[in-house]
Amino acid sequence: MSHIDALYKSSLALLTDLYQLTMCQGYYHAGIANHEAVFHLTFRKNPFKGGYAVACGLNTAIELLRNFKFTEDDIAYLQTLNGNDDNPLFDATFLRWLQKMEFSCDIHGVPEGTIVFPHEPLIRVQGPLYQCQLIETMLLNTINFETLIATKAARICQAAQGEPVLEFGLRRAQGIDGSLSASRAAYIGGCAATSNVLAGKLFDIPVKGTHAHSWIMCFESELVAFEEYAQSMPNNCVFLVDTYDTLEGVKKAIEVGKHMRHCGHEMGGIRLDSGDLAYLSIEARKLLDAAGFPKAVIVASNDLDEHLIESLKAQGATISVWGVGTKLSTAYDQPALGGVYKLSAIREGKHDPWNYKVKLSEQMEKISTPGILQVRRVYINNQAHADIIYSEECPPDDVFDLVDIFDSTRRKHIEYDDIDDSIDLLLPIFEKGKCTFGSQCARYVRDQVAVGLTKFHSGIKRFANPHEYPVGLEKGLHEKKQKLIMELRGH
Amino acid sequence: MSHIDALYKSSLALLTDLYQLTMCQGYYHAGIANHEAVFHLTFRKNPFKGGYAVACGLNTAIELLRNFKFTEDDIAYLQTLNGNDDNPLFDATFLRWLQKMEFSCDIHGVPEGTIVFPHEPLIRVQGPLYQCQLIETMLLNTINFETLIATKAARICQAAQGEPVLEFGLRRAQGIDGSLSASRAAYIGGCAATSNVLAGKLFDIPVKGTHAHSWIMCFESELVAFEEYAQSMPNNCVFLVDTYDTLEGVKKAIEVGKHMRHCGHEMGGIRLDSGDLAYLSIEARKLLDAAGFPKAVIVASNDLDEHLIESLKAQGATISVWGVGTKLSTAYDQPALGGVYKLSAIREGKHDPWNYKVKLSEQMEKISTPGILQVRRVYINNQAHADIIYSEECPPDDVFDLVDIFDSTRRKHIEYDDIDDSIDLLLPIFEKGKCTFGSQCARYVRDQVAVGLTKFHSGIKRFANPHEYPVGLEKGLHEKKQKLIMELRGH
Repeated sequence: MSHIDALYKSSLALLTDLYQLTMCQGYYHAGIANHEAVFHLTFRKNPFKGGYAVACGLNTAIELLRNFKFTEDDIAYLQTLNGNDDNPLFDATFLRWLQKMEFSCDIHGVPEGTIVFPHEPLIRVQGPLYQCQLIETMLLNTINFETLIATKAARICQAAQGEPVLEFGLRRAQGIDGSLSASRAAYIGGCAATSNVLAGKLFDIPVKGTHAHSWIMCFESELVAFEEYAQSMPNNCVFLVDTYDTLEGVKKAIEVGKHMRHCGHEMGGIRLDSGDLAYLSIEARKLLDAAGFPKAVIVASNDLDEHLIESLKAQGATISVWGVGTKLSTAYDQPALGGVYKLSAIREGKHDPWNYKVKLSEQMEKISTPGILQVRRVYINNQAHADIIYSEECPPDDVFDLVDIFDSTRRKHIEYDDIDDSIDLLLPIFEKGKCTFGSQCARYVRDQVAVGLTKFHSGIKRFANPHEYPVGLEKGLHEKKQKLIMELRGH
Repeated sequence: MSHIDALYKSSLALLTDLYQLTMCQGYYHAGIANHEAVFHLTFRKNPFKGGYAVACGLNTAIELLRNFKFTEDDIAYLQTLNGNDDNPLFDATFLRWLQKMEFSCDIHGVPEGTIVFPHEPLIRVQGPLYQCQLIETMLLNTINFETLIATKAARICQAAQGEPVLEFGLRRAQGIDGSLSASRAAYIGGCAATSNVLAGKLFDIPVKGTHAHSWIMCFESELVAFEEYAQSMPNNCVFLVDTYDTLEGVKKAIEVGKHMRHCGHEMGGIRLDSGDLAYLSIEARKLLDAAGFPKAVIVASNDLDEHLIESLKAQGATISVWGVGTKLSTAYDQPALGGVYKLSAIREGKHDPWNYKVKLSEQMEKISTPGILQVRRVYINNQAHADIIYSEECPPDDVFDLVDIFDSTRRKHIEYDDIDDSIDLLLPIFEKGKCTFGSQCARYVRDQVAVGLTKFHSGIKRFANPHEYPVGLEKGLHEKKQKLIMELRGH
């Protein structure tokens, strides 16, 4: 059986770091596996030196969690693993117990497409300690990657200023799923379509594409190649013009375009895939306009990203559709979002008081926030004004006092009367292990991103030194956190 | 149905760029779909500014190609796609024909684990033009990514100078498959084990892991946490010591280690995950040695890559096991290998002469090589001496004359008598659509990499300005290529 077949037939419960399972066995032996714990998934820095991130990946996480169960085959595999001296790593009683696991966590999550910021919980998991631990790696894998790509796409689309961006990344993406989930996340971030046909099928997102250099090379001349293409697909004709000499290619496309028009069809446009895209697009535009094709689009591709698009626009390039591949689908300049998943509270049983937890570090930004966290976003004059991280045990009422996470002398005071609206970002996703959150199609989530971004000051969206959107701890939570840190440091 | 379920039930024939399918329809209409074509997959630059690459990904490609077929469901999806003015993109006759496709290409490939260089074909596909085109994107996706990661792993393992490297990248990898295929490729490149349990199960590779900070935080103190862990898993005890104060943590690990020894068990060692790893490892080593634990390992992790490992070694760090995650599994400093797939020859039927093809470019390095290519590696004094790219139609005999790809005045002349051995790198993988290549387990391939690397001069393996291993075109092929380029440029 191939590994792909095996993967399809396997549960994905084993998609985890081994230490989650060894810890589970430890919790089981220590008698605390069913203590109730709370973990949060957060990231510490906006990707790409930017001012925001676009939450994504919850959809994949939900799909994985709906089927979160160890199969007999999984347990049989775990039985084969050894520690030192070839002693079995896991004991049989533990594995039998593990196989009987019924997933029962409560999960809150920020819906996909929400604009989010460092230190805000994107996911909150509450439930039996061992279960919280078992799903950690999988949650990080899906949320880290898809949030990264949705954010990259939003930045690229912003640079394109409303002109369509097509995602062409499949050939350079990191594996099969690296391409599929990137295509979906890129669409959510604002791309108009993908070249990835399977992603189109699986996620119901638009697919686009015409032909490659090899098409041209299979015919006796570029002109014949264009003619044959036009004849075969008169409704999808964007001619790739740079196989031999770009501007000569444009002239041939025009020749074929005229013939098409004569037969009642309209050429879609041309594509540039190499050379000086600013110069070539301007010259191609002149040729197309002069020949009576002012509506023919100019598609450009070739290692584009938000910075190159911004630069091409500044140079007056007349590109109307942007094909973006590698730099988008792998988030080339920062290929990982450093999301983490930290324990923040634990108690023996449902009726015991919570024991808040922080993870210390010499770096302030790596110290986690204790509690059962929620994020309230406050709107003033229809603009997002600030986000307040608070603990559900002590929600803010009519006055909001925020304390900066790094500099506790930086504070913000908001009066209830000044607020137009406020929402809590984390919504219930799973209750006692059952999914209660209606699935959202990619198209809907994409619209949410577009609308969401309009609610923020443009300063957070610029590429160079973006404005830092205010995110702070509710004052009471800040004080609890300080107290815990002082205790742990022995003061 | 979730997209993961749908993916598992779907064929992966749709894992392709849309333009491959529109071109197929074009070839079909133009009556050349079944012309015989030859395409090669190559990359243009060694990744990571290095001196070599480790071929990987063929295993995944074989698995995908074994089942290369469009299902009814795939065809039904393609029927729904539209071009301009809502006209169907594909016509029904073409789709019926496509559904009947039986994969019939001949494929040659460089076995996984082979040391390879820019411009060498890693894969050669020969068969009906439309089929060669349909598998392009999938081949690029798998070979590009897995070769990238296997190469990164080889570099990291080289920096570790034989000490074990553990791959911990799942939580930051690019998607589910981005993690699974990265774990396998990392193992092939030389890693000792992965933390990814599912990868361990699917590919039969070793898995490793102990516990996280959350384990420590769930107990009343670090000491109790270590004690509980030792009690639960006396055969797998590497204690994470940096939750509160690293060197205090080491002392507690020693305390528990002594107790374990008393009970007939031996602590495995400690893990450092933050702070000054050079200083802390040296101090921890002193403490462990002084307490009678000279064999206890010191595992270190925290954003490591080959350069940091080299630097830590230069600083005298006493780390004995290296945990590497994000930087390895995403190939952080270069997250994509720019592999390409180019048409190099075409003919109408089996008995017609080949029409050699080159793709022009203003950049010399982007001009493709025509022919039905093979690579011969020549060994002198048991060391790889040079690789000669030649066309199967005109194999080199007893004299090898190489011409540099970029500078045709740089040449190398090798006499047959001087040669110890020579091998052709491309082996038959598929014949007429059937796989003829025996599958190779990851462990075997990993050994091939280790042995393969010893056959090359150390200069190609250094990180800064590596030596450029000689790869050239066989003289006759070089001359054909020059002639074709001149013709295309109208000289």
